[in-house]
Amino acid sequence: MSQTWSIIENGFKVSTNRAYEGLFTLGSGYLHLRGSLEEHLRDAPQNADYMRRPANVTSEKFVETKAKWGAYVPGIYGPHPLCNSELVNLPFFLDLCPVVAGEPLDLERSRIDACTRTLDMRTATLRRELDWDSPSGRIRVSFERFVSAVRPAVCVQRMTLRADRAIEVTVFAGIDADVRTNGYDHFKEAQVTRAGVSAICCHLEIDSGDCVDIESRLIAAGAAWEQHEERRRVRLSAVLKIPAGGSVTVEKRTAVATSRDPGVKSPAEILDAADAAGWDTLHAEHAAAWAARWAGADVLIEGDDEAQLAMRASVYHLLRAHVPGDSRVAIDAKGYAGEAYWGRFFWDTEMYLLPFYLYTDPLRARTLVDFRVRALPGARDNAASYGYRGARYPWESDSDGRECCPNWQYRDHEIHVTADVAYAMAHYARAAEPAYVRGPAAEAIVEAARYWLDRMDRRPGDSHPSILGVMGPNEYGPINSNNAYTNRLAAFALKLAAEVGQEGGATPKERCAFAEAAAGLPIPRAKDGVLVLENEEFATRADPRFNELWRNRNATYAAQVSQERIYRSKCLKQADVLMLMMLFPHEFTDAEVKAAWDYYLPFTTHDSSLSAGAHAIIALRLGLHEQAWEFWRMSADKDIDTEHGGAAEGIHIAGCGANWQIAVLGFAGMATALQSETFTLAPQLPARWKRLVFPVAWRGSRLRVDVAAGRCEVTNLGQEGLQVRVWGESRHLPGGQMIAFERPGKGKR
Amino acid sequence: MSQTWSIIENGFKVSTNRAYEGLFTLGSGYLHLRGSLEEHLRDAPQNADYMRRPANVTSEKFVETKAKWGAYVPGIYGPHPLCNSELVNLPFFLDLCPVVAGEPLDLERSRIDACTRTLDMRTATLRRELDWDSPSGRIRVSFERFVSAVRPAVCVQRMTLRADRAIEVTVFAGIDADVRTNGYDHFKEAQVTRAGVSAICCHLEIDSGDCVDIESRLIAAGAAWEQHEERRRVRLSAVLKIPAGGSVTVEKRTAVATSRDPGVKSPAEILDAADAAGWDTLHAEHAAAWAARWAGADVLIEGDDEAQLAMRASVYHLLRAHVPGDSRVAIDAKGYAGEAYWGRFFWDTEMYLLPFYLYTDPLRARTLVDFRVRALPGARDNAASYGYRGARYPWESDSDGRECCPNWQYRDHEIHVTADVAYAMAHYARAAEPAYVRGPAAEAIVEAARYWLDRMDRRPGDSHPSILGVMGPNEYGPINSNNAYTNRLAAFALKLAAEVGQEGGATPKERCAFAEAAAGLPIPRAKDGVLVLENEEFATRADPRFNELWRNRNATYAAQVSQERIYRSKCLKQADVLMLMMLFPHEFTDAEVKAAWDYYLPFTTHDSSLSAGAHAIIALRLGLHEQAWEFWRMSADKDIDTEHGGAAEGIHIAGCGANWQIAVLGFAGMATALQSETFTLAPQLPARWKRLVFPVAWRGSRLRVDVAAGRCEVTNLGQEGLQVRVWGESRHLPGGQMIAFERPGKGKR
Repeated sequence: MSQTWSIIENGFKVSTNRAYEGLFTLGSGYLHLRGSLEEHLRDAPQNADYMRRPANVTSEKFVETKAKWGAYVPGIYGPHPLCNSELVNLPFFLDLCPVVAGEPLDLERSRIDACTRTLDMRTATLRRELDWDSPSGRIRVSFERFVSAVRPAVCVQRMTLRADRAIEVTVFAGIDADVRTNGYDHFKEAQVTRAGVSAICCHLEIDSGDCVDIESRLIAAGAAWEQHEERRRVRLSAVLKIPAGGSVTVEKRTAVATSRDPGVKSPAEILDAADAAGWDTLHAEHAAAWAARWAGADVLIEGDDEAQLAMRASVYHLLRAHVPGDSRVAIDAKGYAGEAYWGRFFWDTEMYLLPFYLYTDPLRARTLVDFRVRALPGARDNAASYGYRGARYPWESDSDGRECCPNWQYRDHEIHVTADVAYAMAHYARAAEPAYVRGPAAEAIVEAARYWLDRMDRRPGDSHPSILGVMGPNEYGPINSNNAYTNRLAAFALKLAAEVGQEGGATPKERCAFAEAAAGLPIPRAKDGVLVLENEEFATRADPRFNELWRNRNATYAAQVSQERIYRSKCLKQADVLMLMMLFPHEFTDAEVKAAWDYYLPFTTHDSSLSAGAHAIIALRLGLHEQAWEFWRMSADKDIDTEHGGAAEGIHIAGCGANWQIAVLGFAGMATALQSETFTLAPQLPARWKRLVFPVAWRGSRLRVDVAAGRCEVTNLGQEGLQVRVWGESRHLPGGQMIAFERPGKGKR
Repeated sequence: MSQTWSIIENGFKVSTNRAYEGLFTLGSGYLHLRGSLEEHLRDAPQNADYMRRPANVTSEKFVETKAKWGAYVPGIYGPHPLCNSELVNLPFFLDLCPVVAGEPLDLERSRIDACTRTLDMRTATLRRELDWDSPSGRIRVSFERFVSAVRPAVCVQRMTLRADRAIEVTVFAGIDADVRTNGYDHFKEAQVTRAGVSAICCHLEIDSGDCVDIESRLIAAGAAWEQHEERRRVRLSAVLKIPAGGSVTVEKRTAVATSRDPGVKSPAEILDAADAAGWDTLHAEHAAAWAARWAGADVLIEGDDEAQLAMRASVYHLLRAHVPGDSRVAIDAKGYAGEAYWGRFFWDTEMYLLPFYLYTDPLRARTLVDFRVRALPGARDNAASYGYRGARYPWESDSDGRECCPNWQYRDHEIHVTADVAYAMAHYARAAEPAYVRGPAAEAIVEAARYWLDRMDRRPGDSHPSILGVMGPNEYGPINSNNAYTNRLAAFALKLAAEVGQEGGATPKERCAFAEAAAGLPIPRAKDGVLVLENEEFATRADPRFNELWRNRNATYAAQVSQERIYRSKCLKQADVLMLMMLFPHEFTDAEVKAAWDYYLPFTTHDSSLSAGAHAIIALRLGLHEQAWEFWRMSADKDIDTEHGGAAEGIHIAGCGANWQIAVLGFAGMATALQSETFTLAPQLPARWKRLVFPVAWRGSRLRVDVAAGRCEVTNLGQEGLQVRVWGESRHLPGGQMIAFERPGKGKR
C-alpha cells in the first residue's frame, strides 16, 4: 500500500480516536459516515441530551466522549432550538462486533496487537486489522468498508475473522437509532425492527418532517440470526465457527433512502439491485469510479511524501464531500464529517472550495453556484428581514438558504458573503460557462446588487458612497467602516450586475446606479497612499500585546484573551487586505502588497484555518519562499495532525480547498479565469518538491501540468488549441500537444 | 381622597390589567407584591414553562397573559439558565375570592359595576371597590391591603362584603406555589399545607439553596374552614352569611421569612407578634411610618395635578423599592415590581436613583453605596475573568455582584459602570459622610482605579492614554474609542483613587499613575474645538434616516429598524455627551453645551426611559423651557401611562429617580454636592407650576425649599447654620430660620 495514498493509524489511542474518526470519514456525496469503530467503545454514550441547558447552544460546545458517531445525508436538517436548523446525525448502522466466550472485542479492554486503521484514499476504502487475544485464542480481525461511489446510498462492510485453531464467535450487528445531534434529539419517531431472517430496518421521522429509511442486511454463511431489542436499537447475533487455520466472513450492506430523494426508492429496492453482486464486484465498481475521480483531480507531488499525503487527504475530502448533481445543498463547513457549525454553508463554498471544483470538474462547480441561485428566495427574505431591497445571502446558510448564524456580530455585519456569491457566479461563468451570469444567475446577481445599493450610505461631506458597519474576513474586527475587502467585492458584484443586469430584470437606470456605486466605493489607504487599510478604523485600534498576552503559541490568541480585548485591538484572525490582494493581484503593485504584508502580518494570529492559504499565495507573489513554505505547512497539517484535535469535529474542508489553491494557484502560479483570459502559470516549487503534476479544466479545455526543476510541461488533453503563458512566455498549444517551458533566468526552483 | 395622592383605575380592562398590577405594587423594601386581583382571572395560568425553548432566554420575552403575579423578596435569587441568576417570583398568597351560588367573583365574567382600584400612596394602601350582581343579589365588595412598613414581612388584607339582603357567600383563600419566574421553575421543593384551623403554611426550597416560609392566617367571625388541595396549592373555604343590610369581613394576614434574614424568625412568630392588633391598629402604625417617609421626601407641586400625581408615584416607588438597612441588595431595574431584567442592578442605581436618597434620606443612600463595597469580591472576579487587575463592576449585577448580562456588547463594552460606582461613592461622601471614601469605600475605589489603569491603551503616536472598545451610555453605539462620558468618569474615578488611595492600599507610585492617567484621558472634540464628540467614530457614522425609517414615532426607532442599521448609524438611544454635561456642568461652557444639544438632539431617539431626565435638565441650563417641559412630560408619564404598557413588566424605577432629578436638580436648579460645596438653587419653574416644595438633606443639614412665582424660600430645619445660594445670591442661613430669595431681573417664572 503506497504511503502517499493511505493514511494509517498505527495502534489505537482513545485520545486521538475522534480525530481519526473525522479524518477517516467515508462518503459518496449522498451519504457520509465518520470512521467510527464498528464494535464501538464502552462508556461512550451517543445519546446524551446535553443541549437541555440553553447555555450550551449559543456556541459550539462538544461533549468530550471517546467516540463520536456521525452519519449524515446532506439536506436532512432538523430545527435547531436556537437558530433555524442543523444537519441531523442519523442512526449508527456500522455496528459489527465479535464476541468470544462472553468477551466482546474492545480496543480498550481486550488484549490487542498489531492494530492498524487505514484509509486507502485511492479507493476510498477504510480498513482495520488487528490481532485479538480472545479468551479462546488469537484471532486476526479485519474490517473493511466503503460507501459506494456507484450506489451512493449504499455502505458495504465486511468483517473477516481468522484463527489458527477453531474458535466459536458470536457476531452482533445492528442499527442504533438512539443517537443525538449536538446533544439534541431530532427524531419524532424512530422505529427499528427486524426484517426477515437477516435484516434490520429503521424508519425515522425527523422533526423537520423529512423521513429517513435505513436497511441493513447481513450475509454470513450458515448464520442463524437471533434478535436483541432495546430502546431504538435492534441487533442480530449469530454464532459462527472459525475453522482451525481458516476464517469466517460477515458482510453487512446498508442502504439509506430519504423523503428528499428524487424518485424515492426504498432501501430494500436499492439493496436488491446489488443483491447478485459480491463484495469484490461492488468494490471494483466503486474503486473504478474513484479512479476516474482521481484522474481528473489528483495533485502529484514528488520528493515530499508528507506534502503528498496531506494534499491527497485534501483532494480526497473535496471529492468526497461534494454532492454530485444535487444543487439543493452545498458543502458544509466541516465537509459532512462532524456536527461543528451545525452543517451550515459559509462563504467558504465560494472562496475556498469553488476553485478546486472549477478547475477540476466544472459540473461539480455548477451545483455549488446553482445552490445560491436556488437559495435566492431565502436571500430575499433575509434582505427584507433587515429592511433592505434585493437579496442578502446568509452568513450561515442551511439547505433552504435561511440565515442560521446564532451570533449577531457575524450574522448582521459579515455581509461580504453576498458579494462573494456574485464573485463566485462570475468566476464559474468565466472559467466554465460564460452564459451562466446572463442566464441562470442573472436574477440573483441583480438582486444582490439591489441589496448592496440599499445597504450603502453616503455620509455628509463624502464624495463617495460607503459601506459602514461591516465585519470583513478578519472576524476580530466586528463593526467597521469601508472594509477594503467588502468594498472591492461589493464593487465587483455591482459592476457585474451593471453588465448582465438586463437579463436579470434590472432597468437601465438601475444598471447605471450599480455602475456608479461600483466606481465610487473607496479602498481606504493610509496617508502614504501605499498601505491599504483594512477599514477606516483599523489604525486607531490598540496594540494587541501579543508578547505579553499570547503566551502559548500552540493555542489560539482568542483562547488566551477576552473577546472584548480582541475587538478593540489591532489583531487579525485571518487574511483580510491580503485576501483581497490575492483575489485581485493586478490591482495592487508589489510595493502595495509588500506594505500590506509588512503591516498586517505582525498583527495576524492565524487563529482561523482560513488564514494560511492567502498568506502562502501572497508570500509567493512577494518571492518570500520560506514564509510561503511555513504557511503551506500550517495549512497542510490541519486535519492530518491528529495529536492536536485535527478533524475531531469534522474536516476543515475550506482548508482542503486552500491546500489545493496553495499548490495550484501558489506554487504552480496559476492565474484564475477571473485574473487572466489566457491560461497562465508561473511555477515556483518549494525546494523539497521535485515535481508537481496536476490536471486542469480551463474554459472548456482539459490540460495537464507537469512542473519539475525549472521546467514546466503543459499538455492539452483536448482537441482544440489554446493560448498558454508560462513564466511570462505565451505560446499556442494545439489540441493533443504538449509544450515544455523553461524557467527563464537563474535561481531556478 | 385627594386626586394627587391616589392613582385610580376606573372600571376594569383586561388590556391594562398588567400595567396596573405593576403600577400598584406594594412593598416594604423587604417584601414586594404586584397589585394583582385577589380573586385572579380565569385562563391566565401562572405556571407556564416557557423557558424550555432556549431562544426565549437570550433576551426578555414575556408571555402575554391577562395577569402577572409577582411576589419578590430582594436577595432571593435562583440560578438563571443562561446567565448566573435571577430574582425569584414567590408564591401567590393574596388569593381571596368570594363565591355565591357557585359563581366566583370574576371581573371578566361576573356582572360588575362601579369598579375601582385605587392606590393610596400616602398610606401605601391598595383598595378595590365594586358592585357585584351575584346570583343571589348585589354585593358591595371591598378589598384592602398593605405591606406593613412597620412589620416589613407582613401583608395584611381585608375583604368586606355588604348587601342589602341576606346572602350566603363561600369565601376561598389560599397560597398558590405553582408559579414560575420568567417561565422557569425555581422551586426544588414546595410544600403547601394547612396549619391549624384557619392557616396555611408554605415551605419552599429555592434552587439556589435558600429557603422561604410563608404563612397566611384567616380571620373571619364564625367561619368553619374546609380544606382544598391541589398540586402546590392549598385553599381554605368557609361559608359566611351576609346579613340583610349588613356585612361580613374576612381578614388575611401573611408573613414571609427567608433563610437570608438575619436572626430568622418563623412566619408564625412574626404573625403572633401582631396577633393582638386589629386591622385598624396595624394600618395606623403602617400609615404613620409612611407619613414620616413622605415628610422627608414629598415633592409638592401646586397648579399641575397631573405632574403632582406623577411625581408622587415616582417618590412612592422610590420609597417602596429601597430595602432599608440591607446593603446586601440594591434596587433592581424594575423596582421589584416585575421580572424584566431578571431583578438585576445596573448603573441606574448610582446615576439615577442615588441622588433621590442622598438628598432625602442619606441612610438609605448608604446601603446603596455599601452594596457596591460588599460586591468588591465579585467585581475582582469579574476583572480577573477578563484578564485585568483590580475590580470591574458588572453591567448587570445580582445580589452577589456577579456579572449576569447575557448580551456581550453590553457586558463586555459598557464598562462605564465601574466609574459610575466610584462617582457614586464620592457623591455619597460629599453629600453625607466625608469619611466614607477614605474609609469603607477606599479599597473598592483603589481596585476600580487599578482596573481602569489596566484597561487603558496607549496607541503609537498618541500623547495620551485611551480607553478603546467601549459602549457609552448611548447603547446604540456598540464599540467605540474614547467615549467622552466614559473617559471623563474614568478620570474622575482615577483622580479619586489618587486622592484617597493610600487608605485603600495603593502605593504612592500607583497613586501617581492614577493621577497621571486621570489627567491624560482625552475628551474628543470636533475640529471646531467646541463640539464634544461622543467618541472618535461618531461623526463617521451613517445618517439614521429617521424621516424615512422611523415612521411610527409612538414606537421606538429600534422596533422599526435592524440592530445592524442602528450600530452603523449616528443615532442615540439616550443622552451620552449631554449626560456628561449634566454631571459636570462647570466643565463645559454654555456654547459647548448648546453645540452638543444642537448636534445630538436630532439624532436622539429617546428609546430609553433614561434619556428624558438629562435632556430636561440640560434644556433648563440652556433656558429652553418648552423643551424642558416636553422632556419632563416624556419622563413623567412612563409608568402612569397604562395605555402604552406602562409598568406592566415592572416600574421604570430609574425613570422615577429621573423625575425627581428633573424637579429638584432641574426645575429647582439644585446643584449636587459634587457640583457645589454650597447649597445652591436656581429655580425656573414650568409655567403651569404655581409652587414647588420639597425637603432636602444637605451635608448634615435638613432644609425645606419652597419655590413660587419668582420667590424661593429656604428653611433650615436643623440647628446649625449654613451658606445658601439662590439665583446667584449667597446668604448665610442660621439654624431654624427661613430666607426668602427673590428672582432677580425680569421674566420671572
